[in-house]
Amino acid sequence: MQQLSIIKVGGKVVETPESLQQLLNDFVALPGLKVLVHGGGRSATKVAEQLGIETKMVEGRRITDMETLKVVTMVYAGLVNKNIVASLQAKGANAIGLTGADLNLIKAIKRPVKNIDYGYVGDVESVQVEELMELLNKKVVPVIAPLTHDGLGNMLNTNADTMASALAGALAKHYRVNLVYCFEKRGVLSNPNDDDALIDKLSHPLFKQYQQSGVIAEGMIPKLDNGFNALNKGVEKVIITNTEGLKQGFNAGTVLVL
Amino acid sequence: MQQLSIIKVGGKVVETPESLQQLLNDFVALPGLKVLVHGGGRSATKVAEQLGIETKMVEGRRITDMETLKVVTMVYAGLVNKNIVASLQAKGANAIGLTGADLNLIKAIKRPVKNIDYGYVGDVESVQVEELMELLNKKVVPVIAPLTHDGLGNMLNTNADTMASALAGALAKHYRVNLVYCFEKRGVLSNPNDDDALIDKLSHPLFKQYQQSGVIAEGMIPKLDNGFNALNKGVEKVIITNTEGLKQGFNAGTVLVL
Repeated sequence: MQQLSIIKVGGKVVETPESLQQLLNDFVALPGLKVLVHGGGRSATKVAEQLGIETKMVEGRRITDMETLKVVTMVYAGLVNKNIVASLQAKGANAIGLTGADLNLIKAIKRPVKNIDYGYVGDVESVQVEELMELLNKKVVPVIAPLTHDGLGNMLNTNADTMASALAGALAKHYRVNLVYCFEKRGVLSNPNDDDALIDKLSHPLFKQYQQSGVIAEGMIPKLDNGFNALNKGVEKVIITNTEGLKQGFNAGTVLVL
Repeated sequence: MQQLSIIKVGGKVVETPESLQQLLNDFVALPGLKVLVHGGGRSATKVAEQLGIETKMVEGRRITDMETLKVVTMVYAGLVNKNIVASLQAKGANAIGLTGADLNLIKAIKRPVKNIDYGYVGDVESVQVEELMELLNKKVVPVIAPLTHDGLGNMLNTNADTMASALAGALAKHYRVNLVYCFEKRGVLSNPNDDDALIDKLSHPLFKQYQQSGVIAEGMIPKLDNGFNALNKGVEKVIITNTEGLKQGFNAGTVLVL
């Protein structure tokens, strides 16, 4: 099987022009087939603010009412996605920008209302990679925005980490997949204030232990759940690292093991 | 050669939810391979207004400064394009939303400044349909937003009629292409205020004569130039009609002949 790298980038990295260009240079330099999954939350918050739409977050998740859905569709699938695609084309990668609606790539279900009504937020239901694979095999580089659709005509806002994990899991049947979560820090830290406190190898039992003791908390928990889910679906390697780590051949940062 | 229909829709049709859904039903019902090219100017003007960005038009063309480029990228490639894609998926068509940057489909050159500086507006330079054809042959339905890229990392605002013509011309080497310009009126009218004054067949010499006498004027001129360009590149049929005409098997409205 061919090797395929799925790189998820989010946070400031993707939304500062200089760091984005640097990241895309490193991404283009990666060998083999590849997919980029991006966020764009900061830009969405900024555009929402300019439009006078209040941003509501609960536990780090955006409450997506109808107006906010329009904003994230514009910002993620339009502004952020197409600027990445145009930049990659300029760097010689034949990029294509996609959401989960395109090619019916990722279908989701609107999150059921329990304690909190997240609005137009999608939980991944199915992944359909047949046409995506045709493109990959022609050396096309998919650039995926964090949006899905419900199969009923509506777009849904979906977490980019989850989309990367779902794609990696589905593609693991056809490729030897490396999944890289690329963010600001060196990897998973045993002390969030000490960048030297890198956990270089994190097993699932150790993760659960750290979670219980509070060493690993907040946004890192769903990210790691997504990472371990991908491993469980046959993804060969999952690492969590920063842009520096991206250059080191999938051996930097925190490596997850089952 | 297989038949391929390229339908360009613009104006109110694409920006009123009810008429859009009706149009998409008719589009899905068309036999054979198909491509949809859409506009979105009214939505762009509305979002620009909400963002406090002034819309400047010269001879019906949008002056695209950096802020306006962001708006049209958000609205055309994000909001309008992805809502069409999600709707088509719900209607059973495996749609994919693309700009000229995706798959390097349409590369353009930033319009040189002569009397007017149009800003980030692209004039089509080259069309590359290899990967698009792979998708078409898998029954995927491309939905094209009116944006191109310059190959240097920038998106460019590009006229949707021109993009439809350029695509039709490039695809005419591989398919028997019908190009339909679908808009509010029944077709080209010899009296713009009389919907019964339909010119059902318009030859190029007659077009030039009507242009000189002022019977055909304003926005219809570049549309017809685009239509005749497509015929010159081997497109089998070019018609100009409304959504009613779309249902009548490429025999309604105004048929262009060389």
